[in-house]
Amino acid sequence: MLGSHIVSNCMRAVDLIRKKRDSGEHSREEIDFLISGYTRGDIPDYQMAAWLMAVWIRGLNLAESAALTECMLYSGEIVKHSDLPMKKVDKHSTGGVGDKTSLILAPIVAAGGLAVPMISGRGLGHTGGTLDKLEAIPGFNTALTLTDFRRVLRECGMSLIGQTAEIAPADKKIYALRDATSTVENIGLICASIMSKKLAEGIDALVLDVKAGSGAFMEREEDAVRLAEVMVDTARRTGKKAVALVTDMSQPLGRMAGHSNEVIESIDVLRGRGPADLRDLSIELSAWMFHLGERTKSVEEGRRLATQMLASGKALEKFRDCIRLQGGDARVLDDASLLPMAKKQVDVVSAKAGFIAATHCREFGVALAMLEGGRGKKEDRIDLGVGLEFHKRIGDRVHSGEKLVTIQYNSDTRLAEAKDLIASSFIILDNAPPVPPLIRRVIGA
Amino acid sequence: MLGSHIVSNCMRAVDLIRKKRDSGEHSREEIDFLISGYTRGDIPDYQMAAWLMAVWIRGLNLAESAALTECMLYSGEIVKHSDLPMKKVDKHSTGGVGDKTSLILAPIVAAGGLAVPMISGRGLGHTGGTLDKLEAIPGFNTALTLTDFRRVLRECGMSLIGQTAEIAPADKKIYALRDATSTVENIGLICASIMSKKLAEGIDALVLDVKAGSGAFMEREEDAVRLAEVMVDTARRTGKKAVALVTDMSQPLGRMAGHSNEVIESIDVLRGRGPADLRDLSIELSAWMFHLGERTKSVEEGRRLATQMLASGKALEKFRDCIRLQGGDARVLDDASLLPMAKKQVDVVSAKAGFIAATHCREFGVALAMLEGGRGKKEDRIDLGVGLEFHKRIGDRVHSGEKLVTIQYNSDTRLAEAKDLIASSFIILDNAPPVPPLIRRVIGA
Repeated sequence: MLGSHIVSNCMRAVDLIRKKRDSGEHSREEIDFLISGYTRGDIPDYQMAAWLMAVWIRGLNLAESAALTECMLYSGEIVKHSDLPMKKVDKHSTGGVGDKTSLILAPIVAAGGLAVPMISGRGLGHTGGTLDKLEAIPGFNTALTLTDFRRVLRECGMSLIGQTAEIAPADKKIYALRDATSTVENIGLICASIMSKKLAEGIDALVLDVKAGSGAFMEREEDAVRLAEVMVDTARRTGKKAVALVTDMSQPLGRMAGHSNEVIESIDVLRGRGPADLRDLSIELSAWMFHLGERTKSVEEGRRLATQMLASGKALEKFRDCIRLQGGDARVLDDASLLPMAKKQVDVVSAKAGFIAATHCREFGVALAMLEGGRGKKEDRIDLGVGLEFHKRIGDRVHSGEKLVTIQYNSDTRLAEAKDLIASSFIILDNAPPVPPLIRRVIGA
Repeated sequence: MLGSHIVSNCMRAVDLIRKKRDSGEHSREEIDFLISGYTRGDIPDYQMAAWLMAVWIRGLNLAESAALTECMLYSGEIVKHSDLPMKKVDKHSTGGVGDKTSLILAPIVAAGGLAVPMISGRGLGHTGGTLDKLEAIPGFNTALTLTDFRRVLRECGMSLIGQTAEIAPADKKIYALRDATSTVENIGLICASIMSKKLAEGIDALVLDVKAGSGAFMEREEDAVRLAEVMVDTARRTGKKAVALVTDMSQPLGRMAGHSNEVIESIDVLRGRGPADLRDLSIELSAWMFHLGERTKSVEEGRRLATQMLASGKALEKFRDCIRLQGGDARVLDDASLLPMAKKQVDVVSAKAGFIAATHCREFGVALAMLEGGRGKKEDRIDLGVGLEFHKRIGDRVHSGEKLVTIQYNSDTRLAEAKDLIASSFIILDNAPPVPPLIRRVIGA
């Protein structure tokens, strides 16, 4: 009331904070005012923090989520690949334990004839990051300029780098604030953070791997589905093709976690070996990328093409090209001992007999971080050689004293704690449980 | 989960923000950690802003409100009056249009033998402030040191000053942040802001005047009642006597608004004249102060004492003493022309005949601010001579063309706008409405 009479009509952050606080819906112009004002430094951290908390509690609808994504996208540069004739496609995963499909599907899809311009993040907490894993390969440079990123992409059809200062600077600034103000886990904000960076890659289509289960960011399937729906909707509002697979993270993906370990397992799959779940999911995601990128007429045809790229060794050779072009030592493909490896190892054994019924999957990632194989805080250094090898999956029978996990480690400061945590993260029951399906839902097909 | 394993056990602001975000209840230690950390500068504005928004939306319960009040109170100094034998009592009003009872009841209660150490605020928006009104008296110094405040109190039983840097510094810092982040109107936060400053006065008892109606901060009676209950509960948890009167603010209190105008009307009441509503409320509040301050055995006896202090002229002489001791020109008591007065005046007349059924009371204060007789923003200067005189009250008959309000003004920049706003803020109907009771509820009696 007062404001309407005394203060002039121009937009003010304090009024927009009030609007969201009172469950109002923002126009695109209002979101743009907030995001561009904050990115320029005209709106202070404390006003953005209050707005973020109001958003966390009151929520953003589909139109607001898409507007926020676009405002954050346009805060920076969008990579142009006009010199490349093929479609540009990418995949994003919400992360989990042992999720290394990027290292496998990027070579598959590039080998199949599409371009994969992948800008990834680092690991934090219980999840690993693609950049960190790639850096286990001696010399591999993830800090390419956008010019070099485009060049590598042109030369081999794939390139994997980290976020540069030009990409969605609003997200960088807002994410740091969310982290400090407990406003991270909100679907609209997560969508905008992920999608603004992915759309900045200059892609035509995006496949989303939204994890659900005890090792996922979104434990409950309904939350994962909602996030998937909002991201697919946002992608489409910006004119991109998109589909989301809601996939199982109630146990680690594959048998290996840890940085060198995950590179080794990815190479295994590229050689046509490796664990079935990791291989199947990599093929499934690749198939959708082929289909959305109009390389194949159907997802089924995409599966065949992906399988062929593995069987023929073409995907492996594509990875070799990419490693070389980004300065890495491609001999790791044939000699895993060139990767940093931990010096010691110890087994975690089962205290009882029965069947693996479930896991507290997130805790495996936490245990890895305890052993310096992951980051508790952003500033933490990682020991790339530290890893876990999982010997049992949900549904497997286990005997008392049988190996559950092999820990590869260097520092034993927190080893006992990590062992206990791992041992207590297997739920062992007398009867064989149903095995969770790998692909739970497909959203936007 | 992650935090519990990787991060150490010490308290962190980010976790407390999450707790309130998720509707948790804070312990006293947690609130102390936040408030003392913020006051010291260890917790940044953006974390406090996120917490305030979480508090605004999720609320504080009685124990949290009291704990917040005490933490803010102990962020600064509590005035000691151990040299004064009588009880120390004060009144606080949540404010409205024409509310000048402090200028009347402080002299009444001091004349009656109690001490009134009153630390007040400035006006903002549609409400006036006691300090600003006092400053209409030439030379009156509201910026005494706490030492001089205690001295004046000792010499005449009352002193009226503004908040000093020593009093509840946490409130000053937090209030500025609330103002910029749309987190002002929350009962727990309002309670802590008011009560931390009042309890710092070193009082034994407090009477609260919580306004309800169209000119009040809390328009709805149920909100006013809740605020009253929380403040009374908080006062008692800290060992103070307290009672709250929920009083009517559906129209201006008395006939006068504006700074010099309100001093004039207060002197009128102290001389045994003045409008009935203002006189009655001043006596009622004084009566409760006498009773809680154990000067009288009952409220009824307090009323008689208050009436006597007015009739005998003792309250007027007490105000004279206080004005002199605080450097003011006490001749204003006998010669109102010594107060700053506006040069021009104009009447707002009724466009139709009928009865005054209600008012948009807040808008009178807004109109006053338009004419520079109030503050739109904290930085605004006030023209102390600008004022409104109200000729009609709810229930009064009015003829077409009859005077509703006389405006006293200097600048006519926004005069037309102010006139229109005032005219449209009277609701005139054909039938006489019920007249709202002045005292709506007594809480904590």
